[in-house]
Amino acid sequence: MTAPAQRPTPPADAARSMEALVSLCKRRGFVFPASEIYGGINGFWDYGPLGTALKNHVRDHWWHQTVECPPLDPDSGEPLSVLGLDSAIIQNPKVWEASGHVGGFSDPMVDCRETNGRYRQDQVEVLFVEGRGAWAFPENKPDAIAKKLRKAGVTIDDGEVKNLSQVDESLYGTIVAPDTDKAGTLTPPREFNLMLDTYPGVIRNEENKAYLRPETAQGIFLNYLNVLNTMRVKVPFGIAQIGKSFRNEVTPRNFIFRSREFEQMEMEWFCSEEEAPKWYDFWKHERMRWWESLGIDQANLRFRDHGSDELAHYSSACVDVEYRYPFTAPGFGELEGVAHRGNFDLTAHTRASNAKLDYFDQELQLRLKAEGVGKDEIKERSRYTPHVIEPASGLTRAVLVLLCEAFTPSPERSGSDYVMKFKPKFAPVKAGVFPLVNKDGMPEVAHKLYMELRQRFACEYDAKQTIGKRYARMDEIGTPFCIAVDGDTLENNVVTIRDRDTTQQERVGIDRVAAFLAEKGC
Amino acid sequence: MTAPAQRPTPPADAARSMEALVSLCKRRGFVFPASEIYGGINGFWDYGPLGTALKNHVRDHWWHQTVECPPLDPDSGEPLSVLGLDSAIIQNPKVWEASGHVGGFSDPMVDCRETNGRYRQDQVEVLFVEGRGAWAFPENKPDAIAKKLRKAGVTIDDGEVKNLSQVDESLYGTIVAPDTDKAGTLTPPREFNLMLDTYPGVIRNEENKAYLRPETAQGIFLNYLNVLNTMRVKVPFGIAQIGKSFRNEVTPRNFIFRSREFEQMEMEWFCSEEEAPKWYDFWKHERMRWWESLGIDQANLRFRDHGSDELAHYSSACVDVEYRYPFTAPGFGELEGVAHRGNFDLTAHTRASNAKLDYFDQELQLRLKAEGVGKDEIKERSRYTPHVIEPASGLTRAVLVLLCEAFTPSPERSGSDYVMKFKPKFAPVKAGVFPLVNKDGMPEVAHKLYMELRQRFACEYDAKQTIGKRYARMDEIGTPFCIAVDGDTLENNVVTIRDRDTTQQERVGIDRVAAFLAEKGC
Repeated sequence: MTAPAQRPTPPADAARSMEALVSLCKRRGFVFPASEIYGGINGFWDYGPLGTALKNHVRDHWWHQTVECPPLDPDSGEPLSVLGLDSAIIQNPKVWEASGHVGGFSDPMVDCRETNGRYRQDQVEVLFVEGRGAWAFPENKPDAIAKKLRKAGVTIDDGEVKNLSQVDESLYGTIVAPDTDKAGTLTPPREFNLMLDTYPGVIRNEENKAYLRPETAQGIFLNYLNVLNTMRVKVPFGIAQIGKSFRNEVTPRNFIFRSREFEQMEMEWFCSEEEAPKWYDFWKHERMRWWESLGIDQANLRFRDHGSDELAHYSSACVDVEYRYPFTAPGFGELEGVAHRGNFDLTAHTRASNAKLDYFDQELQLRLKAEGVGKDEIKERSRYTPHVIEPASGLTRAVLVLLCEAFTPSPERSGSDYVMKFKPKFAPVKAGVFPLVNKDGMPEVAHKLYMELRQRFACEYDAKQTIGKRYARMDEIGTPFCIAVDGDTLENNVVTIRDRDTTQQERVGIDRVAAFLAEKGC
Repeated sequence: MTAPAQRPTPPADAARSMEALVSLCKRRGFVFPASEIYGGINGFWDYGPLGTALKNHVRDHWWHQTVECPPLDPDSGEPLSVLGLDSAIIQNPKVWEASGHVGGFSDPMVDCRETNGRYRQDQVEVLFVEGRGAWAFPENKPDAIAKKLRKAGVTIDDGEVKNLSQVDESLYGTIVAPDTDKAGTLTPPREFNLMLDTYPGVIRNEENKAYLRPETAQGIFLNYLNVLNTMRVKVPFGIAQIGKSFRNEVTPRNFIFRSREFEQMEMEWFCSEEEAPKWYDFWKHERMRWWESLGIDQANLRFRDHGSDELAHYSSACVDVEYRYPFTAPGFGELEGVAHRGNFDLTAHTRASNAKLDYFDQELQLRLKAEGVGKDEIKERSRYTPHVIEPASGLTRAVLVLLCEAFTPSPERSGSDYVMKFKPKFAPVKAGVFPLVNKDGMPEVAHKLYMELRQRFACEYDAKQTIGKRYARMDEIGTPFCIAVDGDTLENNVVTIRDRDTTQQERVGIDRVAAFLAEKGC
């Protein structure tokens, strides 16, 4: 047996920084493994007090920018119409038949005839090697199988085996399953649906089988007609929602990047077919601007257009906003997809439900009439099933990105190993309020200031330990400002405000502290 | 066959008003039946644009008052410590064994041997009578079975049959199931668990069977130790969360009052056993104050202490905050429960998980030492498993209460049949901005005002139809203020603001409109 080799990606220091981040998240109350006291449950995470605050801030920012105060129409300057929605996680199962999820939302899996174990097809080789203490495939795979696989075009990309499905079925006879030493026990791959199912209703039969939604988008298509009928909107308009989705991922991984329960922020933008390319371009750039508004370094963000081989059959264009995660660095990984879904979904639901989901475009009708277009053509063109541009992102993934982006080792500081450099708007705690020493009248003044500030800002009062230790703790939870009440405060009503990122201090009148925090975007 | 009798409760006019409310909710975009284009799915609802806004406002109010700015300690005047949490819906299944939900969270059901239909035991008689076109049981039940049932102590309360479980099993032989005419086809009752289950993981076996949480509370108990270890809190403190829960209700009913998917707002307050009665009393009154802060008429709210026969075996006290729903009027129905859960849950999880969930109370130790208490007694008393006070309410039920409370028939107004009198803070739309007529420069001024206001307040600009029709629509969606730009505005920079509830109008300087809305609590 050869010695364990280095895993090709991610780089070792990135893996270490991910480990350190996960550990900080647990130690400081951002993210905990779900059911930890029972040994956990694979693919599920709980958000602690600070993680919940961070997540709520991102949620509210997206909702405000998307629904409450959406962007202006680039042509008319009018605010776009985007309506909020909150649809149920469990819907009539016919929804998922029509959308194609019952038939097609699946991963290919292989079973081991020997042990009854089940593995994702693209992982049997990685697991096989891993079981022998090495990440070596395919560079220095210790046996003859690797050669065959390489010859068949199989490669590893970011730890995932690619092109294994193109391998001749006979090759499965030579692969060793992870938990046995016998070769050839694996079946050819079979499709495994990623939707979790459950049985609402009193009788447990196939008719009552329902699914936990794998995306919030279908809830939007289901309510397209309701919104159109009740909210006095005209195409183009959008419907947006934030909510939980579930996917029975075969291998949840990379912390909260790929979990079985996660939260999405999705918008469906309904428009005419001819305007769809314009809106695709609009939302693509709008979404990038939004990610930048979170305080993410532009160098860590990029677009990646999907190749024609990656597109779903109903989609004519799709672009990912990608982020440079520690576990993909120096490469990038998916953050948000902006897809031109055509009118696939509305058409599928029209067919399956018999609901009339087409739209009569009165403005287009008038325009065509003015252009002198013939009656029949007007009739045909002004009633259509809208096309859809879909910016779909993950709220929990946005939290991961903010955590990665904020996470800064700080070996030069005493007391704290890391500083979490959140933009003030998203920081869970906006200010620490400290008396320099816990006596001489300082606690009283500091506490009074804290009691005033807490009405408007998330603050913490802390009078324990040395001021250095208090700063260090605030650095690790990402509090942008620490306000110290000292001797000067008692004499001149001036406090010292320390900036988390620069550690620079400035003197501010105690009456101006709230305004200071507001100006800094807290 | 006798003529159909009146259903004893709810009164006919209350039922009618409920029907009108449900209809308005659909027509105006508050609440839609889920999967409506597929014929719906029993027990699930989608929240439309206005319902989502209303729900978000209630959610944010609860979160702010509970987590971000919790009440002050009645003794010390210090802010209480309440930490936010957002735990996963799916947890390790052992959680629900330990909590008693796998064993005990169930309804008794009877099966029909003839048709394989399944019914909740307390409903077979109601359904039976209903199937014959009457709600008459037990007052004028048309056959001999009713007499037997009444003699056995069976009664109807709010449309539910009570005490049927006390009926001798032999009586089942005489009951006719709802969908057959043959008597005696029903089985004796069997327990039916209300938790929905699903199978995360690649292999579908009993070991991987998990549950959709029926309450958010257990997620809090699971993270008690994590919060205690990471957030520098001391007993007493609280952990609060808002999130979806699922119960496979046999008969979802009364609109969003009892649905299979719903949203909860729960807090667990951890304290010592000796202080528990004090905190029980504190939270009981605090919660009532909170409900009143939503603008609910005090006459429609009341406490109802649970009798000793209603208490769960682990609970030493429980009080419901009740509301006078249209479907319970003139009676009341459950809105929130404040329970003294003792230390049942933490003790159960300690036993099942082996985690150490007890608490060392250093302050108590010092106090006992100062009191001269003996060493052994100090040791015993200062380490304990905290007791818990739990205020548990439904966010979706709060939305129902706000809808019921706001819903006001307005036969005296022309154009609108109803006015939704939401408190401005919770209204989905805060202001309508109208030009009196759509010409003479008024649209430009009104639109400019709208563009400024929309940054801070949810507003609608409307220039269509008569101003009366615009007012009527705003009344029905509960918009507290309508701002009209008229000739006087052009000359004197003064707009007319109409109050939704009084229809009184007042003149306000156009520069003061934002301040006016803020002062009114929008």
